[in-house]
Amino acid sequence: MSEIKQKIAVIGAGSWGTALAMVLADNQHQVRLWGHNEVQITEINTHHTNSKYLPNIELPTNIVGYHSLEQAVEDIETIIMAIPTKAIRDVLKDIVPLVKRPMTIVHVSKGIEPDSLLRISEMIEEEVPASKLQAVVVLSGPSHAEEVSLRQPTIVTVSSKNMKAAEKIQDLFMNQNFRVYTNPDIVGVEIGGALKNIIALAAGITNGLGYGDNAKAALITRGLAEISRLGTAMGANPLTFSGITGIGDLIVTCTSIHSRNWRAGNMLGKGNNLEEVLANMGMVVEGVRTTKAAYQLAQKIGVDMPITNALYDVLFNEQNVKDSVDSLMTRVKRNEIEDLFNAWGEKQEL
Amino acid sequence: MSEIKQKIAVIGAGSWGTALAMVLADNQHQVRLWGHNEVQITEINTHHTNSKYLPNIELPTNIVGYHSLEQAVEDIETIIMAIPTKAIRDVLKDIVPLVKRPMTIVHVSKGIEPDSLLRISEMIEEEVPASKLQAVVVLSGPSHAEEVSLRQPTIVTVSSKNMKAAEKIQDLFMNQNFRVYTNPDIVGVEIGGALKNIIALAAGITNGLGYGDNAKAALITRGLAEISRLGTAMGANPLTFSGITGIGDLIVTCTSIHSRNWRAGNMLGKGNNLEEVLANMGMVVEGVRTTKAAYQLAQKIGVDMPITNALYDVLFNEQNVKDSVDSLMTRVKRNEIEDLFNAWGEKQEL
Repeated sequence: MSEIKQKIAVIGAGSWGTALAMVLADNQHQVRLWGHNEVQITEINTHHTNSKYLPNIELPTNIVGYHSLEQAVEDIETIIMAIPTKAIRDVLKDIVPLVKRPMTIVHVSKGIEPDSLLRISEMIEEEVPASKLQAVVVLSGPSHAEEVSLRQPTIVTVSSKNMKAAEKIQDLFMNQNFRVYTNPDIVGVEIGGALKNIIALAAGITNGLGYGDNAKAALITRGLAEISRLGTAMGANPLTFSGITGIGDLIVTCTSIHSRNWRAGNMLGKGNNLEEVLANMGMVVEGVRTTKAAYQLAQKIGVDMPITNALYDVLFNEQNVKDSVDSLMTRVKRNEIEDLFNAWGEKQEL
Repeated sequence: MSEIKQKIAVIGAGSWGTALAMVLADNQHQVRLWGHNEVQITEINTHHTNSKYLPNIELPTNIVGYHSLEQAVEDIETIIMAIPTKAIRDVLKDIVPLVKRPMTIVHVSKGIEPDSLLRISEMIEEEVPASKLQAVVVLSGPSHAEEVSLRQPTIVTVSSKNMKAAEKIQDLFMNQNFRVYTNPDIVGVEIGGALKNIIALAAGITNGLGYGDNAKAALITRGLAEISRLGTAMGANPLTFSGITGIGDLIVTCTSIHSRNWRAGNMLGKGNNLEEVLANMGMVVEGVRTTKAAYQLAQKIGVDMPITNALYDVLFNEQNVKDSVDSLMTRVKRNEIEDLFNAWGEKQEL
């Protein structure tokens, strides 16, 4: 736990932003929690609750809600961005003119930007001029907000191109319930977090087809291998995919009934097409967009991603879902370690 | 699928031996399935079922049951050992005098021998004279026997010091439903399979304590890291632990309600002591024995295994279970990749 107490702005008062604000408040920092909904901010300041996003949770009184972005970021050096990926550029456009000193921006989002195929830290570097940017740090890991707000044991990873900045963020958040690791591999941390949703979709499909634990384990393991190949071709360290933001986050996403991606996959496996699934879900299924981005990235970079390709054909080319899964099983036999070593970008003599 | 059809002996007519016999029979091999229960063998030969172990499954007619070990192994070059770990030495003592040609022995068991701390392939090498041993191959992976007998998609790994022998076994088993990878790292394949049960116990404990998905993901991820450290110190390739016999098998064990180890851990987490848990389970909990073996191995080799140590203290030193789990969270902060790189036996400059 850090000895020097800071003023920190958390931008976004949803469940994850609020839970992270609680961790910082537990560590005695002065936390400004910004949200665009005035009624919600008033509730935070008068009742110390955020009942829509974290029902039955009492917020520490050193969390103060802000409705004015200008006031929230005044004299602030550290900003936690806890808003949906698609809103990040717009909110940064509002923040940049308001700040005078270089900021450390911590983002907690998962995704790849469509078309640009940029990671989120790269988007942030496009929006914020270098003169106002100290560092970009990503915080990621297997972490339901509700469990964090209940102070249950949780581990996450922080990463940055600037590891001194990442270590400062580690110190801000670290406490008895919330354990923070550092990892210098920002590419791997961001790619693992984004691409796990593809595997969750595929795991849901095997369930919908009536297949069991063996098939699920097969898809998760081979899916992790191909994500690792893509990530490493992009410059990631393959070991990151064995860690907290890789396999750790993947386990939660593929085995929690709350995962939207898993549920969407399950419906696809039962024979519904993409339109029916999206209409039925009534909300964004991140893995669908990520499948397209990963497919495009794999084509661009020249990496073999059989599960992503099969899923792309099911989602966008009306390929039969059972044929696609079964065809994954009849590929030529392979050496498992050769596959994994290829993730290191070099073929080993075995 | 191999073109050359072979005579193969499967020693052990339990659920896993019978399911593997079915895979070989589907590939048109002549399969001799040996078991010590005469009634069961008669059922296999007259009704083509093994109703105690695989209810409602019809066996292919090219599986023939044998009650005589001598007849089962006559003129046989390939033996699949599908019997409990503790029976392997005794049955091999019976087989060795009966065979004249060098055998390839495939084992499908998971464990470390108590006291000797040997892996199973090492036990086999102790029991069989070199003149009668062509190769020892391990077959391992996330595979419920019932799902294999239903011909659902399954992937496994084969490994051996003799990779030509492993590739022959790959050819014997490979088909459309049962996909076989090779991996030259026999140490990693055997250690991963054995030690996964420790993590399943620990994951069950967090559930019993009332903790959620975050804590489970944390334990699985950090548990995999420490198994990887131990395995690598023993000569394994750390990438094996990211593969089918590592994380793949781990996922099934930690998320299936059928896992005895998970269930035992859950009871420990709810406050029962080891005697109560074992009395209630009424059967062997492999992870308890493996925790002791891994604890001894870690001491002997000098590897840091905080989760194994905490579990050992809970099981054998009456340490309070909640204090032990909570103390795991308050260790000094660490760099995740440093931890994983240490699994490679060398500290990298980061």
